Amino acid sequence: MKFNIALLAGDGIGPEVIDQAVKVSDAIAKKFGHEITWKPALTGAAAIDAVGEPYPDATHEVCLASDAVLFGAIGHPKYDNDPSAPVRPEQGLLKMRKKLGLFANVRPTFTFPSLLEKSPLKRERIEGTDLVFLRELTGGIYFGEKGRRDGGETAFDNCVYTRAEVQRLAKKGFELAMTRSKKLCCVDKANVLETSRLWRETVQAMEKDYPEVTVSYEFVDAVAMRLVQWPNSYDVLITENLFGDILTDEASVISGSMGLMPSASMGADIALFEPIHGSYPQATGLNIANPMATVLSAAMMFETAFGLHEEGKAIRDAVNKALAEGIVTEDLADGGKAYGTKEVGDWLAANI
Amino acid sequence: MKFNIALLAGDGIGPEVIDQAVKVSDAIAKKFGHEITWKPALTGAAAIDAVGEPYPDATHEVCLASDAVLFGAIGHPKYDNDPSAPVRPEQGLLKMRKKLGLFANVRPTFTFPSLLEKSPLKRERIEGTDLVFLRELTGGIYFGEKGRRDGGETAFDNCVYTRAEVQRLAKKGFELAMTRSKKLCCVDKANVLETSRLWRETVQAMEKDYPEVTVSYEFVDAVAMRLVQWPNSYDVLITENLFGDILTDEASVISGSMGLMPSASMGADIALFEPIHGSYPQATGLNIANPMATVLSAAMMFETAFGLHEEGKAIRDAVNKALAEGIVTEDLADGGKAYGTKEVGDWLAANI
Ligand SMILES: CC(C)[C@H](C(=O)O)[C@@H](O)C(=O)O
Ligand SMILES: CC(C)[C@H](C(=O)O)[C@@H](O)C(=O)O
Repeated sequence: MKFNIALLAGDGIGPEVIDQAVKVSDAIAKKFGHEITWKPALTGAAAIDAVGEPYPDATHEVCLASDAVLFGAIGHPKYDNDPSAPVRPEQGLLKMRKKLGLFANVRPTFTFPSLLEKSPLKRERIEGTDLVFLRELTGGIYFGEKGRRDGGETAFDNCVYTRAEVQRLAKKGFELAMTRSKKLCCVDKANVLETSRLWRETVQAMEKDYPEVTVSYEFVDAVAMRLVQWPNSYDVLITENLFGDILTDEASVISGSMGLMPSASMGADIALFEPIHGSYPQATGLNIANPMATVLSAAMMFETAFGLHEEGKAIRDAVNKALAEGIVTEDLADGGKAYGTKEVGDWLAANI
Repeated sequence: MKFNIALLAGDGIGPEVIDQAVKVSDAIAKKFGHEITWKPALTGAAAIDAVGEPYPDATHEVCLASDAVLFGAIGHPKYDNDPSAPVRPEQGLLKMRKKLGLFANVRPTFTFPSLLEKSPLKRERIEGTDLVFLRELTGGIYFGEKGRRDGGETAFDNCVYTRAEVQRLAKKGFELAMTRSKKLCCVDKANVLETSRLWRETVQAMEKDYPEVTVSYEFVDAVAMRLVQWPNSYDVLITENLFGDILTDEASVISGSMGLMPSASMGADIALFEPIHGSYPQATGLNIANPMATVLSAAMMFETAFGLHEEGKAIRDAVNKALAEGIVTEDLADGGKAYGTKEVGDWLAANI
């Protein structure tokens, strides 16, 4: 098969970890007889510096013309302490999600048996954890009307959801649950919010189309608790944009291996794959960042965007082998030998 | 001194745990020469059943005429699966907060050395944790305009904050930080929300009035992570209503002793004290609920509402002694002897 893949390396350690995912993907292409054409494009602070815009139209064109998008990370410290600066890298992220219609953010959280001790949670609490969040990504309070009144003394943010928006996200949730243990949890705050009541009634009405799926409804505050108490009691969770932002970050701590966690953002026509970690500016250029989350994001891309399961599995097998043999960056080295970002990438590519 | 204390036992285990707090408070009054007049009043499902209203006007009058409010818990399973029922216990809670002007919810999270093993988090992560959340409780998306459009197909919730609302909460935060380790964290989502940008700029402008306090600004998703990773890196945290709802529940897990955690909700004229746990309907009437969180809420009441620190300390000393001697309910018994709710209350009162 032939693919065009948009390559949005972004800021900080983005370019370094993306390089390794490219290397590994190329090894996969060679082994399985595919042809990948990489289409690099600018995003984030890098794009602001170059063209004054964190998600330039040219980048959008590249994404639209591609079969998938592989994304590194964006964010630069020079914008961190000024959240009201006129142009910020995050705006590019939101614009990209909206313009590409990436309405479903898929975030698996799972444990690696060899890394269980890395978690801040006790082993017996997390053993066997394998859950997936589906976070709505193009609606809610992120994209509602916002502004000031009363000469700046009053601020407002509007949270809006339509039934259709809930349905398309929930549909993905039900479908995913059908391929797993058929358990779906709808996370909302229906005891307070009208948008949450719309979420709940919409999901309730869809239950009859998936009679095999057991659906539970839990309040976001209760989930924030139980996620730390018994993460392995969850399987597929669906939720709105802001709750998803908070809970997926909370969940990412469970496995203790944030440097390993991939994610996907799916739209109707295109999907984007990225590590869940950020741009980690302090590590930029030091060849110490863990490339595995980005490499595993490429695995998700082969599986989810191209339906190539063997290819995805080959990547995951290589990562597992590297973990077992200690071919890891300093975050996982535990006093043992630490390999560089590039060296881990080389090893993975060689072991495909 | 003479006090009138409104007694809102509420639903589920509320009445049982409140009884023990009354018993212990009466023992304190006797020992220190105070006179407490308890003013029972209806709230929650109990009030709906009796008068069709979860926070009746008569109850409001009782609260207004009192020096403090001691609250149990509200919520009943018959309302749980129908968040759009016309009258629900939670509405009473929100109405009460709004009408009494309880704008600052104070939620300490601390560890008991003897109970460190109860936490789902590893000992080295939580040792020494002693943090306090100040959650804004009468504004934000909880109280903004909400409703439906397009024949019910679109739902909206408006989040609104004024500078004055932020200032009065932040002022409490700065003042509290001054009495502790002078570290304040403002939790927001200023990279996305306009209300958060108002929060951040308002707190920033107040920094000059408290030159000794070190203020940090963190995004809510980052705090949801770090709270599980390194809870003992926080001291005083201030945040808006919905973020506070989620994060205080998440934080309550850290200590592993939720049955011990008290809270206060402060207004300009009156304050309310309650355990952080809910109405725990399954345990109703079984004499197994842990009364210590409610008893410790009474301690907070003596200290915060009446400025009686010796009295508060006497209660906390009795609780610590009970924990040390194993006079605990089944949630803390760990295979050892479990005492009943009433027996723990009796023991505490006898040991004042
Ligand atoms: C950077 C920020 C706008 C973004 C979000 O809130 O969605 C990030 O936290 C994420 O989760 O991808
Ligand atoms: C019951 C509910 C409305 C309430 C809230 O969200 O404020 C509860 O979760 C709390 O934190 O006291």
